Amino acid sequence: MSLETVSTNRSHGGTQGVYRHASAETGTPMTFSVFVPDHAPGAKLPVLWYLSGLTCTHANVTEKGEFREACARHGVVFIAPDTSPRGDDVPDDEAYDFGKGAGFYVDATEQPWAVNFRMRSYIERELPDLVTREFPVDMARQGITGHSMGGHGALTVALRNPGRFRSVSAFAPIVSPLACSWGDKALTGYLGPDRAAWREYDACALIADGARLSDLLVDQGTADGFLDDQLKTALLVEACEAAGQPATIRMQDGYDHSYYFISTFLPEHVAWHAERLRA
Amino acid sequence: MSLETVSTNRSHGGTQGVYRHASAETGTPMTFSVFVPDHAPGAKLPVLWYLSGLTCTHANVTEKGEFREACARHGVVFIAPDTSPRGDDVPDDEAYDFGKGAGFYVDATEQPWAVNFRMRSYIERELPDLVTREFPVDMARQGITGHSMGGHGALTVALRNPGRFRSVSAFAPIVSPLACSWGDKALTGYLGPDRAAWREYDACALIADGARLSDLLVDQGTADGFLDDQLKTALLVEACEAAGQPATIRMQDGYDHSYYFISTFLPEHVAWHAERLRA
Repeated sequence: MSLETVSTNRSHGGTQGVYRHASAETGTPMTFSVFVPDHAPGAKLPVLWYLSGLTCTHANVTEKGEFREACARHGVVFIAPDTSPRGDDVPDDEAYDFGKGAGFYVDATEQPWAVNFRMRSYIERELPDLVTREFPVDMARQGITGHSMGGHGALTVALRNPGRFRSVSAFAPIVSPLACSWGDKALTGYLGPDRAAWREYDACALIADGARLSDLLVDQGTADGFLDDQLKTALLVEACEAAGQPATIRMQDGYDHSYYFISTFLPEHVAWHAERLRA
Repeated sequence: MSLETVSTNRSHGGTQGVYRHASAETGTPMTFSVFVPDHAPGAKLPVLWYLSGLTCTHANVTEKGEFREACARHGVVFIAPDTSPRGDDVPDDEAYDFGKGAGFYVDATEQPWAVNFRMRSYIERELPDLVTREFPVDMARQGITGHSMGGHGALTVALRNPGRFRSVSAFAPIVSPLACSWGDKALTGYLGPDRAAWREYDACALIADGARLSDLLVDQGTADGFLDDQLKTALLVEACEAAGQPATIRMQDGYDHSYYFISTFLPEHVAWHAERLRA
């Protein structure tokens, strides 16, 4: 598999790159960004994955996330994938919350989505394999975070792959697709009506079913317009308490769902991950 | 004059706002952004102006500048105006470097530009008056910076208004419109062919003609594709040396003309301004 360099820019004492490759999983070109801090020749750095939310591509966090200074300081590679397959041949939906830009990090089983919407396998296997070959990364030291739909992605990928991630955090995650209309629409569409098949894509259900993380950090803004109807942070608090899952879940006063919120706390998350990745 | 609030978002322990007002100078609605750090009731904070470059609006630095953490930490209000009048009734040029998005911070004297393109008076008088009335600012403590065309703006506004700014810096500024094709095209178009009339819009000429700043900080990337033909940092170095103008002009290895460059050094500029504004 060949890797095409779309752009590189020097920033904060490192290199912010954007790359494209032909994905076997999605059957499409996929674009992602990687920030690599300057490092000693031959060194391999720990990795922080960032999964983005509805409507986003790699570009939103790459341009607005304010993570590079912290990544350079702590020596952490930052990887931001896209949120779905793209292209004229990929099926889509008119709504912002289904189809392109809304892959929900699942392997779809329903048609016409099952052909291209294989974001679970892309994020869990194909992209890590590519990154391992192409970048100076130590895959024994991985952390994962994400925002909204990508917070859901980070939590569920980590819960399904015990031991892979030394650190897991999220910003305003969808904590239970089983319990919100975004999840209901997307998982019905991608996976069909059997809700038992959804549980491996639901952080609260995975925790209730016995999956565990070593630790968890979540930030959620109190002025987030999606909090009550879609994100439902309280369900994650309850699931963690019921299961004895250690978690620090912080309500941030006055913050909303935007990158103005994410960029405020992402540097602190990078430091939190780095502490665990470099331990 | 009434001020319309377009949006406010909590960010980095302050409020990032976007505002619109009817400008008497440009005869159009004008949009600008203001970041106000949390502060004690009744307190008035120092101000840092940021003038943007070609094609930009307030939004570029507001979204990509990474200045808020530093402004919140140092208690500095950050103001980002637009780069030209906008709207269907405003004359324009097909090129990116003249007309809308390319006001060059001049008061145009040539038609059809003279009616709306009054960015000098807008930035020097109208917007400061509005900001003084509407925001918790101490206008005795102002700094100014900017990027590219906005670096030219920051330098020339400061050089023409001795004593107004306690601190002046720039990122990859156009240092001499008299000596580059961007300047030649824009100032011919806005001011006419008499190059003597351009000198008050040329930082190097203003310094040669006797204007002075108390101090000056400039960052310029060595990989900036506009360095040799348009920005010509060396002319500013020569002008400062010839005139005895104190200046710290830094060539930053490998950095280009983008916000990946600006965001790397803007926090340091904020701290540099704050040191002088809070002295």
